[in-house]
Amino acid sequence: LTGKYGEGGKLIYELRDQGGELLALRYDLTVPFARYLAMNKITTMKRYHIAKVYRRDSPATSRGRYREFYQCDFDIAGHFDPMIPDAECLKIVHEILSELRLGDFLIKVNDRRILHGVFAVCGVPESKFISTCSSVDKLDKMPWEDVRSEMVGEKGLSPEAADRIGEYVRLHGGLKLIEQLLQDPKLSQNKLAKEGLGDMKLLFEYLTLFGITGKICFDLSLARGLDYYTGVIFEAVLVQQENDHVEEPVSVGSVAGGGRYDGLVGMFDPKGRKVPCVGVSIGIERIFSIMERRVKASGEKVRATETQVLVATPQKHLLGARLKLISELWDAGIKAEMLYRKDPKLLKQLHYCEDTGIPLVAIIGEQELTDGVVKLRVVTTREEVNIPREKLADEIRRRLEPC
Amino acid sequence: LTGKYGEGGKLIYELRDQGGELLALRYDLTVPFARYLAMNKITTMKRYHIAKVYRRDSPATSRGRYREFYQCDFDIAGHFDPMIPDAECLKIVHEILSELRLGDFLIKVNDRRILHGVFAVCGVPESKFISTCSSVDKLDKMPWEDVRSEMVGEKGLSPEAADRIGEYVRLHGGLKLIEQLLQDPKLSQNKLAKEGLGDMKLLFEYLTLFGITGKICFDLSLARGLDYYTGVIFEAVLVQQENDHVEEPVSVGSVAGGGRYDGLVGMFDPKGRKVPCVGVSIGIERIFSIMERRVKASGEKVRATETQVLVATPQKHLLGARLKLISELWDAGIKAEMLYRKDPKLLKQLHYCEDTGIPLVAIIGEQELTDGVVKLRVVTTREEVNIPREKLADEIRRRLEPC
Repeated sequence: LTGKYGEGGKLIYELRDQGGELLALRYDLTVPFARYLAMNKITTMKRYHIAKVYRRDSPATSRGRYREFYQCDFDIAGHFDPMIPDAECLKIVHEILSELRLGDFLIKVNDRRILHGVFAVCGVPESKFISTCSSVDKLDKMPWEDVRSEMVGEKGLSPEAADRIGEYVRLHGGLKLIEQLLQDPKLSQNKLAKEGLGDMKLLFEYLTLFGITGKICFDLSLARGLDYYTGVIFEAVLVQQENDHVEEPVSVGSVAGGGRYDGLVGMFDPKGRKVPCVGVSIGIERIFSIMERRVKASGEKVRATETQVLVATPQKHLLGARLKLISELWDAGIKAEMLYRKDPKLLKQLHYCEDTGIPLVAIIGEQELTDGVVKLRVVTTREEVNIPREKLADEIRRRLEPC
Repeated sequence: LTGKYGEGGKLIYELRDQGGELLALRYDLTVPFARYLAMNKITTMKRYHIAKVYRRDSPATSRGRYREFYQCDFDIAGHFDPMIPDAECLKIVHEILSELRLGDFLIKVNDRRILHGVFAVCGVPESKFISTCSSVDKLDKMPWEDVRSEMVGEKGLSPEAADRIGEYVRLHGGLKLIEQLLQDPKLSQNKLAKEGLGDMKLLFEYLTLFGITGKICFDLSLARGLDYYTGVIFEAVLVQQENDHVEEPVSVGSVAGGGRYDGLVGMFDPKGRKVPCVGVSIGIERIFSIMERRVKASGEKVRATETQVLVATPQKHLLGARLKLISELWDAGIKAEMLYRKDPKLLKQLHYCEDTGIPLVAIIGEQELTDGVVKLRVVTTREEVNIPREKLADEIRRRLEPC
């Protein structure tokens, strides 16, 4: 699996078992997905996958950086008409980030072919494309001056080439910028850049139909570190509002990223058969750390269980009655709980509901057993009503329906 | 983590990373759960966990044995009145195996304390309890004669002790057997056995209230290989019906197992504070291999997607209309799909629905666009009806409701 991740490859977790077999913990879910497609000769697939990945890195838990963490990937593989699956990936990222109410976000989009075109017309030799890419990728963390000196110093570009790159990669905008660059006398002469810009235009047309261009920005500084991308690339970042007076702002930056990798499956296929793919990875831990901060700030109480009803008894020696009733409720598909005590006090049972947020209590005492009913109590209002036992499950469902 | 699994411990996957740090892949989910409780000083918890575990073993995929596989664990931790959580665990296993319609099953139940009591009254020295346990555990795979010779030969028990054990461990039954053993002149003198039998009686009373004793059997031969069990132990096995004429019967045996482990959390706590626990592990791969066989045998077609509707167009140049409509449906929470083609033929789109089992097609052509409607087609009946566009999502939901 090495050799697919570019400069990030040094963070792969390599292991050796007691028999000396060399193993590695997966670095991401994209390369294993590509390998799966190749090994099973699958040419069309759309799937999501939530699983752990591993980095041999220094953890920084406060910013949601771990050595073992979850990623959620979504990928579309297959030969299709251009940019339709790509637009769907962006629609999904947009939907997820909107639904989670994480605050304002921005999805930056670029295309590796446009970047390579820019490098070519600025006079960068092809052998330096990848290393120049990784310098450009740092533009979100350091000012252009520093990136420029890295290009000239470490990467060995000419100062003129670097300056010319600088003029392009600081551009960002929407459909108008794309059309402007399509008219650019130098870029429009470059085959790769022209292809990339043409597809970018198509993509923005589709995104307009999806109604999501408001949060999507064509940004020429976006490069993404991984080697395997071949076309569109994108990255979602959270935007800190200026009037957002949170005491300890958790700066988590990028929460999702992805792009098109049309060559990766072919690298695993013995005959080199290609399967074009586009996909996105969402960093779950990073999103969790933001959501936890939001919940903490708002003072909301998060319920740890989905229990709908507590089965309770007001007198002693009724454990059997509770077990029989809870079994009936479980069989009817109701999420019911009871205290694992032989003779708990009623007050203790009611307090438990208040502590855990269980909304209803089904109380069964001697009188109720005689009458064939169950007393249903609403925890918040303390209202109580007798329900015929055979109608209890329906009544609980009815009361918990979203109004 | 070593030293918690008994003879199974040799299957732990040990690893060393490039820095020489010694690591191991988790053998099960129980020991990590106990460690989690101890490290976080949690004294009460009920949770389920589905995740991968690892065994350094020879795989046998046809029987659902792998080196990396999923387990689903359910555990209840905390100080409670006896046997109430234990009965809930058995109720859950019973419910899962019934719902999955895997065929006839049996849940064997025993108690480590009863086994130890049996060993004691049969004259086995305490130092040989654990190794005798693992011999008894083989009774489901080999006849008593072989187990007996292993006890006498390898484990060094006296032939008389082995014979006496044999009389007990071949017993199985229900409440009646428990009451009979409680009257047994030798066993009833043993403190551990008496405790175990008393709890077993209580457990069967609770299981009777849950109405599940029909599939549960008190079986004195059940021993379970793991060292950490301290009380009730259980194991669910599938029972091959005699009239079950399947060509290649997949014998998968045990599909779930568990028990009470009251000492494990204390082993991880610096002050040795104990948290009693009871839990169950379900072997997901084994269950899958049975379900796959059933599906194959019945010729049922399993749908790979949950897509409710395909958005289709009958003419060319309508990709934009499809993208706009699918976006509206997604926003309304409908599971919609479309072909990633600019101008697919209508027939191709309809065939796709038939192949994948998508039940509805939302067709939008020039006429429908003009009229502000969408043609909704039922794939199986070919019936078509025009629906006002703003009512489409509701109509799809209505039609797919379970009748």
